Amino acid sequence: MPVTARYGDPTATLSVASDVLSLQLAHRSVRKFGPREVTDDELAALIAAAQSAPTSSNLQPWSVVAVRDPGRKARLAALAGHQAFIEQAPLFLVWIADLGRARRLAERAGAPVAATDYLETTIIGFVDTALAAQNAVVAAASLGLGTVFVGAIRNQPEQVAAELKLPPHTVATFGLAVGTPDPTEHAGIKPRLPQGAVLHREQYDAAADAHIAAYDERLAAYNSRFGLPGNWSKRVLARLRGPESMAGRHRLRQTLGRLGLLSR
Amino acid sequence: MPVTARYGDPTATLSVASDVLSLQLAHRSVRKFGPREVTDDELAALIAAAQSAPTSSNLQPWSVVAVRDPGRKARLAALAGHQAFIEQAPLFLVWIADLGRARRLAERAGAPVAATDYLETTIIGFVDTALAAQNAVVAAASLGLGTVFVGAIRNQPEQVAAELKLPPHTVATFGLAVGTPDPTEHAGIKPRLPQGAVLHREQYDAAADAHIAAYDERLAAYNSRFGLPGNWSKRVLARLRGPESMAGRHRLRQTLGRLGLLSR
Repeated sequence: MPVTARYGDPTATLSVASDVLSLQLAHRSVRKFGPREVTDDELAALIAAAQSAPTSSNLQPWSVVAVRDPGRKARLAALAGHQAFIEQAPLFLVWIADLGRARRLAERAGAPVAATDYLETTIIGFVDTALAAQNAVVAAASLGLGTVFVGAIRNQPEQVAAELKLPPHTVATFGLAVGTPDPTEHAGIKPRLPQGAVLHREQYDAAADAHIAAYDERLAAYNSRFGLPGNWSKRVLARLRGPESMAGRHRLRQTLGRLGLLSR
Repeated sequence: MPVTARYGDPTATLSVASDVLSLQLAHRSVRKFGPREVTDDELAALIAAAQSAPTSSNLQPWSVVAVRDPGRKARLAALAGHQAFIEQAPLFLVWIADLGRARRLAERAGAPVAATDYLETTIIGFVDTALAAQNAVVAAASLGLGTVFVGAIRNQPEQVAAELKLPPHTVATFGLAVGTPDPTEHAGIKPRLPQGAVLHREQYDAAADAHIAAYDERLAAYNSRFGLPGNWSKRVLARLRGPESMAGRHRLRQTLGRLGLLSR
């Protein structure tokens, strides 16, 4: 039952079921890929799935750049924390929060689009890109493909923009490496917080934090299977310690401004 | 073939298929619900699906408040543009970008978490919440439930925070109305931009904007079926005209600061 792995809890159960749910519960990030190419037909299906996700006011404020060229993948890997799986994946999708399309539309029409200068609209760009990309992730799984998101594409957004010739008012939000899972990868379904820690009824109740102690034990046990130290709390605190733990991304606000996403 | 409806293009085809893909391609927002309750078992499944989505560094920086109380739904509807379907839906999920859990963790540990003060981390909160919520949307569809996102929950974030007793360092990102679709709703699969408008190969090419003209015709034809005026370009320009077209959300950056998401 995948739900027990999802929560690292042998007593976890769900009493409704669907094939989609089973696929989602079994999700894991894939960081080691087999040699098979992702076909153009598969790519078209992933993008159609992405475009089928909801989007605020039908704005569709995103684009995606499909990278297959080995040299470009290597350069993007270097810009995104030197993660080897970016080069190894046959397909690397860079998801773009794209307010540029609307800005160009406005320029051609001689119309104002001042809303694109506000943080709200930048956030819509990131959120709608994420909704779309997650649909692609689930569609990929349904086709036997594995994926992993790459937030490190935000480490150096201006260099990524130059590599992909991104126009003004656009920014790379995250990458997605896509390929066939290599069955020799040593990886598992990472347990998540107990549902009681994240699901609140009617109003938020911070007492739900009491679930974290059990989760820390479960995640420490899971991590130790892969030779990794630390429980959840320690890892969260290390990751969020301060600007020095952010791989350059503490500059995102200033960078967005230079890319034409004023985010005021 | 749902892909023809998805693009409003009778010649559109896909040459790979899966049940997940079919479900995604057939997505539409549901704004009219039947009387059946969403059970707690269904809710648990939606949240397990959401928790199965990828999350940056396993931070899991989100929570969700499940609202069933009619009075609370009515008050949230009033705060979110008076959209009647919020009250009518048996279940209204408010998705929370939650940096508060990590802040409380840090407080208990006496550790610094200065990274939570940066826009990058706010964005991670919104993005990871969106990835999770989209998994819930697809899981809901697989269980025969309909959904619609409510971005208007950001019109008055402080009032929403008070209604849901949200702690500091959290913000409602969007709502999601959930219920059984009422088959009498007059609605369809909204066509999206031609794939060539959003999918770029190796580098971004703004010449892809040439696809917008055909799309404007398709969306105008679709809208006219529902008595709605305007093509895509006109609707985008109206929506993004300026602060006056943003229903108060042009203040989001200042509001986030007051809610403890400094976003610097």
